[in-house]
Amino acid sequence: MPLDANALRTAGIPAPWTFGMADRVRFAEIDSLNHVNNVVYLRWYETLRVNYMDHYGIYDVAGPDPKFVVKTVGLDYQAEVMRGAPYINVARTVAMRNTSFVMEYATFVDGKITTTGTAVVVILNADSSKRPLTGALRQILIERDGAVQA
Amino acid sequence: MPLDANALRTAGIPAPWTFGMADRVRFAEIDSLNHVNNVVYLRWYETLRVNYMDHYGIYDVAGPDPKFVVKTVGLDYQAEVMRGAPYINVARTVAMRNTSFVMEYATFVDGKITTTGTAVVVILNADSSKRPLTGALRQILIERDGAVQA
Amino acid sequence: MPLDANALRTAGIPAPWTFGMADRVRFAEIDSLNHVNNVVYLRWYETLRVNYMDHYGIYDVAGPDPKFVVKTVGLDYQAEVMRGAPYINVARTVAMRNTSFVMEYATFVDGKITTTGTAVVVILNADSSKRPLTGALRQILIERDGAVQA
Amino acid sequence: MPLDANALRTAGIPAPWTFGMADRVRFAEIDSLNHVNNVVYLRWYETLRVNYMDHYGIYDVAGPDPKFVVKTVGLDYQAEVMRGAPYINVARTVAMRNTSFVMEYATFVDGKITTTGTAVVVILNADSSKRPLTGALRQILIERDGAVQA
Repeated sequence: MPLDANALRTAGIPAPWTFGMADRVRFAEIDSLNHVNNVVYLRWYETLRVNYMDHYGIYDVAGPDPKFVVKTVGLDYQAEVMRGAPYINVARTVAMRNTSFVMEYATFVDGKITTTGTAVVVILNADSSKRPLTGALRQILIERDGAVQA
Repeated sequence: MPLDANALRTAGIPAPWTFGMADRVRFAEIDSLNHVNNVVYLRWYETLRVNYMDHYGIYDVAGPDPKFVVKTVGLDYQAEVMRGAPYINVARTVAMRNTSFVMEYATFVDGKITTTGTAVVVILNADSSKRPLTGALRQILIERDGAVQA
Repeated sequence: MPLDANALRTAGIPAPWTFGMADRVRFAEIDSLNHVNNVVYLRWYETLRVNYMDHYGIYDVAGPDPKFVVKTVGLDYQAEVMRGAPYINVARTVAMRNTSFVMEYATFVDGKITTTGTAVVVILNADSSKRPLTGALRQILIERDGAVQA
Repeated sequence: MPLDANALRTAGIPAPWTFGMADRVRFAEIDSLNHVNNVVYLRWYETLRVNYMDHYGIYDVAGPDPKFVVKTVGLDYQAEVMRGAPYINVARTVAMRNTSFVMEYATFVDGKITTTGTAVVVILNADSSKRPLTGALRQILIERDGAVQA
């Protein structure tokens, strides 16, 4: 189950993070260097993003048959995470443009950030043309996360 | 087998790319949106980077028991790639700093770039402290790829 | 956190299952047929097996530097599992031989089995020769799961 | 590109194998035990099966919108495969029933089998009911692989 702001504060994750998921590193996420493989974080943030959008009801207010696609991603690795470690991944939306929004992610282990990420998410129509964010979608991102118009 | 500059030119991949690998999209690389999943590109570039370093002999000139770790990565998605599509992934090193080097990646389908990536790679000692690039390593990156001191 | 026998019964999972883990299907676990990909179950059972062995203290009683390796696996798919579905994976050891033990796995969705699996696990020495199960290891598997000598 | 019977014989793979694909172990396929992870073979055989069905034209003769689903799989691990190793995966269909067919797989490294697999593949209609194999599909499997009616 997702962690909300209160649950995150209890777990030692500071504001402004308001959405998170806790889990433990799986055997398959460790590579031959004996730490969480760098690609795994991008997979984690995908899982987190989909849960975030489900949980915030974003799919329901994005217009008919929206297709959410990642346009750019970036990851910054600051510390290794080891086998079996408990971690909390957090996400929030920081900015909105006409047809996209910008999310930030982080991984916390023992209250410290080990990796951060960012993604620009676009919404496409069935014909792959870009679709403007609906007002209802903007409202959710503003109220929940304080996302700003960029 | 890797493709060198000549093989890449024959395949329609322009300079300055000098190292590539051709393959076909696998079933498992397609997600429920019916295109190559965005995380898969980061996996492809990891495979490519390891092959590049093997092929250029970089592991052999980096000092005792070098540990190559990615510090940052970025990906920019420009077009979808579909099931079964033949593709060529290319890599090169563009810059060198004291303890790291900067690589660029791209995916070509039918002669057109669909995704690009970048990574900063650091070399660590056994105790995870950073290790300066050796002269021999720099020489390979300069001669092979024209990497510049940054 | 793992589910013990009591927690499993509360969740509607019948005896003799005594170890389980609950989770939700992730986006990346869905393939282009829009169900959980068949390979994913083998990954789930690997995660489950490692957690089972950690939780039961099996690594600690298997002798010096034990290497647990899967010798055979089998999977039987009975029903599809869809995106976002909550599931419980369960594991137990049913039999022990001289140098191996036999585990069974199952996936429950809404109280019904959708997939079952089996694995023969062997313990290897550092030189990859087979190592007999220790008495302490056998005792755990007998007491916890009622595993029989086969 | 797939390897046919002649190409396989040249590579030292004996009859009756008639379809194969050669590749090299990728970094991500190695787990923390420093060998190809056991789940990876099932992924390899999936890739192989899809290529086999594409190459044999099986999707085209299976009736409208066929959905090929794996019913059971089994894997037997005989030897480890290491990082960077060149391997050849082979597949063939050995038997046909009313609504399913049975495939066998193997991984060869240096001319020796390291892992074998088997799968029962069923064809489903859009409503997930089972569909009998068409005559044209049977003919392909008989002519190509000598599959027998079971």
